[in-house]
Amino acid sequence: MTINLTPSPVRLHAVAGRGQPEPSPALEQLYRGFEQELLVPLWTEIGDLMPKQPESKAVPHLWRWERLKALAAQAGEIVPVGRGGERRAIALANPALGGRPFATPTLWAAIQYLMPGEDAPEHRHTQHAFRFVVEGEGVWTVVNGDPVRMSRGDFLPQAGWNWHAHHNAATAPMAWIDGLDIPFSYYTESQFFEPGREHVDQVERSTPERSRSERLWGHPGLRPVSATGTLPATPLLAYRWVDTDHALTEQLALEAEGHAGTLGPGHAAVRFTNPTTGGDVLPTMRTEMHRVRAGGKTQVRREVGSSVFQVFDGAGTVTVGERSWEVARGDLFVVPSWQPFTAQASSAAPLDLFRFGDAPIFEALHAHRAQLGA
Amino acid sequence: MTINLTPSPVRLHAVAGRGQPEPSPALEQLYRGFEQELLVPLWTEIGDLMPKQPESKAVPHLWRWERLKALAAQAGEIVPVGRGGERRAIALANPALGGRPFATPTLWAAIQYLMPGEDAPEHRHTQHAFRFVVEGEGVWTVVNGDPVRMSRGDFLPQAGWNWHAHHNAATAPMAWIDGLDIPFSYYTESQFFEPGREHVDQVERSTPERSRSERLWGHPGLRPVSATGTLPATPLLAYRWVDTDHALTEQLALEAEGHAGTLGPGHAAVRFTNPTTGGDVLPTMRTEMHRVRAGGKTQVRREVGSSVFQVFDGAGTVTVGERSWEVARGDLFVVPSWQPFTAQASSAAPLDLFRFGDAPIFEALHAHRAQLGA
Amino acid sequence: MTINLTPSPVRLHAVAGRGQPEPSPALEQLYRGFEQELLVPLWTEIGDLMPKQPESKAVPHLWRWERLKALAAQAGEIVPVGRGGERRAIALANPALGGRPFATPTLWAAIQYLMPGEDAPEHRHTQHAFRFVVEGEGVWTVVNGDPVRMSRGDFLPQAGWNWHAHHNAATAPMAWIDGLDIPFSYYTESQFFEPGREHVDQVERSTPERSRSERLWGHPGLRPVSATGTLPATPLLAYRWVDTDHALTEQLALEAEGHAGTLGPGHAAVRFTNPTTGGDVLPTMRTEMHRVRAGGKTQVRREVGSSVFQVFDGAGTVTVGERSWEVARGDLFVVPSWQPFTAQASSAAPLDLFRFGDAPIFEALHAHRAQLGA
Amino acid sequence: MTINLTPSPVRLHAVAGRGQPEPSPALEQLYRGFEQELLVPLWTEIGDLMPKQPESKAVPHLWRWERLKALAAQAGEIVPVGRGGERRAIALANPALGGRPFATPTLWAAIQYLMPGEDAPEHRHTQHAFRFVVEGEGVWTVVNGDPVRMSRGDFLPQAGWNWHAHHNAATAPMAWIDGLDIPFSYYTESQFFEPGREHVDQVERSTPERSRSERLWGHPGLRPVSATGTLPATPLLAYRWVDTDHALTEQLALEAEGHAGTLGPGHAAVRFTNPTTGGDVLPTMRTEMHRVRAGGKTQVRREVGSSVFQVFDGAGTVTVGERSWEVARGDLFVVPSWQPFTAQASSAAPLDLFRFGDAPIFEALHAHRAQLGA
Repeated sequence: MTINLTPSPVRLHAVAGRGQPEPSPALEQLYRGFEQELLVPLWTEIGDLMPKQPESKAVPHLWRWERLKALAAQAGEIVPVGRGGERRAIALANPALGGRPFATPTLWAAIQYLMPGEDAPEHRHTQHAFRFVVEGEGVWTVVNGDPVRMSRGDFLPQAGWNWHAHHNAATAPMAWIDGLDIPFSYYTESQFFEPGREHVDQVERSTPERSRSERLWGHPGLRPVSATGTLPATPLLAYRWVDTDHALTEQLALEAEGHAGTLGPGHAAVRFTNPTTGGDVLPTMRTEMHRVRAGGKTQVRREVGSSVFQVFDGAGTVTVGERSWEVARGDLFVVPSWQPFTAQASSAAPLDLFRFGDAPIFEALHAHRAQLGA
Repeated sequence: MTINLTPSPVRLHAVAGRGQPEPSPALEQLYRGFEQELLVPLWTEIGDLMPKQPESKAVPHLWRWERLKALAAQAGEIVPVGRGGERRAIALANPALGGRPFATPTLWAAIQYLMPGEDAPEHRHTQHAFRFVVEGEGVWTVVNGDPVRMSRGDFLPQAGWNWHAHHNAATAPMAWIDGLDIPFSYYTESQFFEPGREHVDQVERSTPERSRSERLWGHPGLRPVSATGTLPATPLLAYRWVDTDHALTEQLALEAEGHAGTLGPGHAAVRFTNPTTGGDVLPTMRTEMHRVRAGGKTQVRREVGSSVFQVFDGAGTVTVGERSWEVARGDLFVVPSWQPFTAQASSAAPLDLFRFGDAPIFEALHAHRAQLGA
Repeated sequence: MTINLTPSPVRLHAVAGRGQPEPSPALEQLYRGFEQELLVPLWTEIGDLMPKQPESKAVPHLWRWERLKALAAQAGEIVPVGRGGERRAIALANPALGGRPFATPTLWAAIQYLMPGEDAPEHRHTQHAFRFVVEGEGVWTVVNGDPVRMSRGDFLPQAGWNWHAHHNAATAPMAWIDGLDIPFSYYTESQFFEPGREHVDQVERSTPERSRSERLWGHPGLRPVSATGTLPATPLLAYRWVDTDHALTEQLALEAEGHAGTLGPGHAAVRFTNPTTGGDVLPTMRTEMHRVRAGGKTQVRREVGSSVFQVFDGAGTVTVGERSWEVARGDLFVVPSWQPFTAQASSAAPLDLFRFGDAPIFEALHAHRAQLGA
Repeated sequence: MTINLTPSPVRLHAVAGRGQPEPSPALEQLYRGFEQELLVPLWTEIGDLMPKQPESKAVPHLWRWERLKALAAQAGEIVPVGRGGERRAIALANPALGGRPFATPTLWAAIQYLMPGEDAPEHRHTQHAFRFVVEGEGVWTVVNGDPVRMSRGDFLPQAGWNWHAHHNAATAPMAWIDGLDIPFSYYTESQFFEPGREHVDQVERSTPERSRSERLWGHPGLRPVSATGTLPATPLLAYRWVDTDHALTEQLALEAEGHAGTLGPGHAAVRFTNPTTGGDVLPTMRTEMHRVRAGGKTQVRREVGSSVFQVFDGAGTVTVGERSWEVARGDLFVVPSWQPFTAQASSAAPLDLFRFGDAPIFEALHAHRAQLGA
């Protein structure tokens, strides 16, 4: 990357309009003065900069899992994985964000693909990350030397600045999605990166059923006394599908028995949390699993900040702003800031949706807002 | 503003390089597939997205106060203030940020100018703001009906979503600077805006020496029992120069007497704080006043996040990264993320620098880093 | 209870000693003046009030489970349970605390006993409570209408001001221990109490394997999205032995494999936590389960505040200050403030110790201290 | 102090009453068994231990300043100040608290008296303390080497574990009150104490108008950048009367102008706060100054926890529970937990009341309650 030190051109043109000064030679001269001094008046920009409510540059968009997987498989054949490129990850580029690999203005979402026997080299970065597995198995992600199995339905957070590598121990390729706060740290210019070893060692290539982190932290309501205090991000490296599924099933069962627990009628939802705080797993990303019972529909909701969803199971219809799609397993779509969102499950089966978003950023800064209804 | 729903073109070209796949027809075909599906691989982007340390798109730049003031005065003659344009504010546009009115990727800094008798209409917005007065007097900013005097050296925070208007009660124009988190809320798409009354009422046009907020909250270490709990932003609407100057003077006196208190040798600094939390006045912006004693020099320091400085008094030399300038009263300059910064006072007089930055964002998200030395 | 409004006699006598004034008629007259005015000088009291380190009024003491159970069973025959007495609970009275039912200056520990078919009537109080089951089963505690099974090894927190009743649904009596902060709230005079229904209704007498609270909150690292935010005490009403045992087993296994996790060599420990904060289950009480491997010994440790232990399993020797006892299942003992404590497991089997203490009080007030070694 | 290791006698007698078992030989035998095993049943104690609302052991009581001062002056003549006794402090002993020097179950309040030229030796303790000066001047309290002037109306907090000594630099004796959390740390057995030097050195005997702590921290809304983060207790060692008086005056003026700010009609109140948190100055004690305008009356209020008041200025009537007194400058009185309190100023002048209480303990533990009205 090179930084262009040539000043960007500021180009102002006197226009008529509400709150605009009358075009005149004096105004034109003033605007030329502004340009020369690298100044821009508020009055020409305020509509864009200070809208009545968030008007996202990003647009709703859907990516089909089958297409993603096919391209990733193709990349698996011809693009090697190694130092420099670091990962065979292919990111969603929101069509309205200038061709950048940004699913939304703050979130990165990519499919990552690893061939049998392959290693993705070790590195660490301050960007927070997670992996979510919509299908397949066979890869272990090695975090600070702790190998963590990745299997369908598992959610695997990866807090910033921890060393990590991936290793495919199976005989088939494996694909999964990565979520990171890359665009956020890119715009705010707060990121650090450090390469590690090319390959993890033999012990780290072992394939235990449960990681050490799970053995230490994966017990409900219990924590090791040896590790008190709070951590900014979760020390638990895997949230297993069996637990997530169980929690969702129980919420719907409780609702059926007449008790509280679901987020809305027929709509169960759990949030992945940091057991040392009870808050979000990562400082910048909220991650949740939602289940809409067969034939059910979520309440329309809009929220400051953006989200990416992946269909984990079932089928149905999702509506984001003025767009609507029939969705199936693996499909990914984005909900830009303040766009109304609703999901409807098909009548045949419940619809399970994995969701990640940037809400913790806004909550930490007291800037979060949400509202039910369109 | 209109959102362009036409997909942005994704344009990938196979290039040679470390971590890059070998150019080949198959690779070109893969890249065409990516483009078609609105996908971008990590391996072509990682250098830009995940640098070893922040490499700001913004560049160090200096704006001369005399030029700013002259252009603002010109605007005072020909640009009216009113609904729609809202404010006669003229913003610094960092030369490397695409001609946008962004001093840094997160911060807005503007000179605002009000003619004798003029009103800037009432509105409110979620963007946090403040005013700082390098010279002049005569304007009252009216916040939720409370008129707040603005005079040289005063710092006037304006937390998001409070109604505010300005009124020039004097017979001369007045200029001051506004700082806001507009670029941050713009990129993260989290902003709300609401217009209020065209003009504040007669009572609100009164010109008290001290605002009600100061009478209630401006007593050191004391708070009204009627208002307990914490607020996300300060309820104190004015931090007066007499207090700031006094605090800085005392720090240097304590140092001279052999006691701790200064930030570094010959370098006093106070932070404006929210009396309900002891933390920063605003959730997204840190604001400070620094004084370097005559002939003194600050330690070189770099920090995640960006800052804007305005010279309040004195003269000296400031160095940002590879740029260096002689500065005088009112001059404004930016320090991009992770660029080393140092300031040296002239031998004749202390150098007083007002500074604002985005550090609270990174601290809230556990992403702040700083280091002394280049 | 009646408050005695007759002034307590203040009785001062001039004594010789370090820091004491010379006895004299004038001094005696002064002391009579103090008494008359209900005054006491610091200089006669400072040794007791301000010791160099905590010198507990309480003493180490051990209660044998077999004796407790026998007396409780006797009470089961002749003492009814009902409104007014509320519970068939028999409390440990530390021998040095004036015959009050206080195990330590802050903690209440009692055996509670319920006959087959009996109900303990519903009430609520601000005192925080928990139950711990060293043996037996058959009772359900009904908390805000949610029946919670009680079985060997289970820990059942009961945050203040929640309605609760108990019901023995089995054909045998059942005993368990109750821990509360009764002495703390008694000394600080902060307690509220409200009686509820004499008997819970038919639905609440059901005997589900898992309570609704567990179905909603008992999933590792997951929380219902419908209930965000933090609660001062845990919403999870049962921490099951199967999980606690598993967590302890894993810590020792990790240690055996060369990894961190135990509290000390051969000493595993888990803390019961509030899933909404990651902190202690109750604002005033810390609760933990410790396991010392066969033949192992814990490091000597002293801590501000007091604890009560119950042997859950195994046998061994515990040492508190200058006292030492051979202990077996169910035995209870107290560790007063700042008294050194160590536990040694027999060579035959691990020693499992349930512990509760008042550390959260001191941590909340920044007054906690601990030190390893005698 | 010696700890009596002889078991306290437990004495239970079968009595008739609601919730009590029928007296019988079997019951008597059971009670003898309890006594033998150092056990006490809940059902005989519940009325005392778990009242429907706090029923304080302490009683409302008033001490006359003139009597206190006279006795302190007498002590000044015959009781030396030095190591061992440490301070010439004479404490209020609530008539219903067993002759102990406890104003309330948690709070210590004493008059301290220092003769011209006298030193109170240096020490430190974990108990939190403050001084409040109802009249006089001439003493400097030296905290960690920083001499702090004490004058009428000043509030001087003294956080736990800081070294401190006092020095009377004047030609007249001086009296003031000390407030500490001695009873609380005594009951909870959490206190540490360490003696320091017999006499502070020559520099520390200087008598500056303002302490270094005030020069660094005594500026409204400003803090030194060299000392960021939060501290459990305030770093500001003096809150001057000129500021407190000004704040109270402004609240009543704002009320008169029709604006919010007072705690109730004609009732101004400010809380002394820790500038690093905005919360109470000390972790265990809340301290406030109240002003009731001439002829005004405060709303009746009851609160969990106890308070001690000292009349700073004016005269009036105070009512605590069923007691009522005419009060004048310097008089001290206690408000036990949950007792209704109101104060009425005489028609001649406002009534200024200094108040300290234990509310932060209950707030930290989520146990605070308050209610308006009797």
